[in-house]
Amino acid sequence: MQIKWIDRGVCYPEGFLASGVNCGIKKDRLDLGVLFGTTECYAAATFTTNKVKAAPVKISSEKLNKNKIYQAIVVNSGNANCCTGNRGLLDAQEMCRLTAQELNLPEEKVLVCSTGVIGEPLPMGNVTNGIKSACSSLNENDLPFAEAIMTTDTKPKRIAVEAILDEQTTIKIGGCAKGAGMIYPNMATMLAFITTDVEIPPDTLQEMLKNAVEQSFNRISVDGDQSTNDTVILLSPKGRKFPEKQYELFQNLLTRVCESLALMIVKDGEGATKVAKIIVKNATTPQDAEKAARKISNSLLFKTALFGEDPNWGRIMGALGAADITLDPNAIDIWFDDVQVVSCGMGMGKETEERAKLAMRKDQIVITVDLKVGKYQYHVWTCDLSYDYVKINAEYRS
Amino acid sequence: MQIKWIDRGVCYPEGFLASGVNCGIKKDRLDLGVLFGTTECYAAATFTTNKVKAAPVKISSEKLNKNKIYQAIVVNSGNANCCTGNRGLLDAQEMCRLTAQELNLPEEKVLVCSTGVIGEPLPMGNVTNGIKSACSSLNENDLPFAEAIMTTDTKPKRIAVEAILDEQTTIKIGGCAKGAGMIYPNMATMLAFITTDVEIPPDTLQEMLKNAVEQSFNRISVDGDQSTNDTVILLSPKGRKFPEKQYELFQNLLTRVCESLALMIVKDGEGATKVAKIIVKNATTPQDAEKAARKISNSLLFKTALFGEDPNWGRIMGALGAADITLDPNAIDIWFDDVQVVSCGMGMGKETEERAKLAMRKDQIVITVDLKVGKYQYHVWTCDLSYDYVKINAEYRS
Repeated sequence: MQIKWIDRGVCYPEGFLASGVNCGIKKDRLDLGVLFGTTECYAAATFTTNKVKAAPVKISSEKLNKNKIYQAIVVNSGNANCCTGNRGLLDAQEMCRLTAQELNLPEEKVLVCSTGVIGEPLPMGNVTNGIKSACSSLNENDLPFAEAIMTTDTKPKRIAVEAILDEQTTIKIGGCAKGAGMIYPNMATMLAFITTDVEIPPDTLQEMLKNAVEQSFNRISVDGDQSTNDTVILLSPKGRKFPEKQYELFQNLLTRVCESLALMIVKDGEGATKVAKIIVKNATTPQDAEKAARKISNSLLFKTALFGEDPNWGRIMGALGAADITLDPNAIDIWFDDVQVVSCGMGMGKETEERAKLAMRKDQIVITVDLKVGKYQYHVWTCDLSYDYVKINAEYRS
Repeated sequence: MQIKWIDRGVCYPEGFLASGVNCGIKKDRLDLGVLFGTTECYAAATFTTNKVKAAPVKISSEKLNKNKIYQAIVVNSGNANCCTGNRGLLDAQEMCRLTAQELNLPEEKVLVCSTGVIGEPLPMGNVTNGIKSACSSLNENDLPFAEAIMTTDTKPKRIAVEAILDEQTTIKIGGCAKGAGMIYPNMATMLAFITTDVEIPPDTLQEMLKNAVEQSFNRISVDGDQSTNDTVILLSPKGRKFPEKQYELFQNLLTRVCESLALMIVKDGEGATKVAKIIVKNATTPQDAEKAARKISNSLLFKTALFGEDPNWGRIMGALGAADITLDPNAIDIWFDDVQVVSCGMGMGKETEERAKLAMRKDQIVITVDLKVGKYQYHVWTCDLSYDYVKINAEYRS
């Protein structure tokens, strides 16, 4: 079996069209997109666990509880439609209704997402025009859609994969995502849309998406803040049945697509200049491994040291000690890539740190912490904290 | 009764001498201090809860478990003596031994603290000379001591208070602290030393210090990181008995001294340009009130908005939703000083935000969140996140 990675997105699998337009929510940039399945699709989705949920999250998750057949998703950026009260709910419903009308679909077959500033009502005049324009410009180029969902992202994020099982049989999965700020596990302001060209029943599809999200989007952190709007939606068109024995392959491909998109989000984290994979090994419980990895990934002192390319392992020791896990400070080993900087809780000296400094100059670095108190492992991806993070977020609404 | 606040520190109460010298751990700045009680003192102390504890924390807390009578504290800055293994423990003990020798005291009457970079052994040659020099220059000016404990602090932090009960009777409390980075509840790298001129038995003294710390140092956050070295020590000289009926007054004064020092630490937080008091009211449990206040105080998005003077209340709503507390998003009210910006979970409009923007230009602002689901309240102090925080921490060891 051959696996090909392609620089395309949600329209790479046959049967999907997309578009992105500017309707004036943002100045000069695409801010409204529509994704359309030419046949009926099963949908799976995961949403933010934040208790303050945006209106489109409420509307889309309620729909998904009732119904599993969809054909379109309408998305706007620049306005989160969150903390907008009853009017926000009506506006999100209206976005579905207008999209359904333009595409000649029943309203229940349309899902809705928003991302952007919290607390302002949607400019529905602009949105209405945008939906009309987006629905009339659907095509197989999925780049405008990937651009229309961006907020502080500096580049669109999309990826597609094709597994060639034999000459007649291939499986395609395509996806796009937006991220950048407010990125934290359990879905931070990130949106991701994933499509495929095979039919998988809704319950299995949901299970597979959940697994993939746990391995990918839920393991990235830019700033430890969690959003009100996060949504991942996977569409699987009805028609091309798929043998159960290949579900494992599909799960694997789906997870890898989600991982690729998640990593693109971290790399494009607000102000990020580099990313680090934090691996915590040999913890006493899976929870401890996760807590330790997350504590390091959210430590401002670690993140600024990463920016400064300083192998300041003392900050990792400090974070571990504060992580509320079982540990023996005198057992801990730490590596920066393949350079061991800590052995049994103590530094390895200046010469080692010089080599670790070289490792930190790279765009991507692996930090491995061996707790040596158990057998469980977890990893997360994080990015550094730079001047630009502060700049972007201090001036976000100005 | 009259209460006077004085710009002095640990030598304001009679019976204490202090000094600060440069011994070469840091370039050109004071880096070693000694505080000396001319009579025997009871001591109370609180230490970091980080599981990775610096050697001086281990040595001083072990001593305090055995013995309650002290006369001197030796402190160095520039090196945390943490993750330094057995050598670190021996070095911390040697600091006590040398100080005791110079001051002609038994070794068990000396406590030791360190703050600074983690993972490097103390330069004991310098430290030895420093201790000799500091012990021979003890006097009633407590400013050099306050300076010798500083790391990235931009200014010394000290305060003294005097309560005049009648013409014959006064109570004095003096204190100094260092903070700046790695500041988080449960004692982040902060050190504080407090003295008084009245005798309070050790168990009561410990209880009072614990109460005061909970109301002050444990309610500040600069960056959510927790240190390996935090220590607060309170010395009460034996001799001048103090009627139990005045314990409440003493507790009150002590708490206010700790609050003053804690607020100085936040104001001088790394890169801080302003501070915010976050009050969360009417939570269903005391724990919920605390969790909510801490979540906001550690949100990078809130802290950068504070720096940008942007009344971006959506970020507060997002933090509340992620705080894992009981809440009704449609009940929440939020104030910036006396300007209400959110009513029942929704914004109050542009004109209100303009007034909130003016409030945010001040150096100190009170953010009040009314959850309206219970009756419990908590508050914390936090500072903004600026370019300089990143600069200081990216370049800390360079």
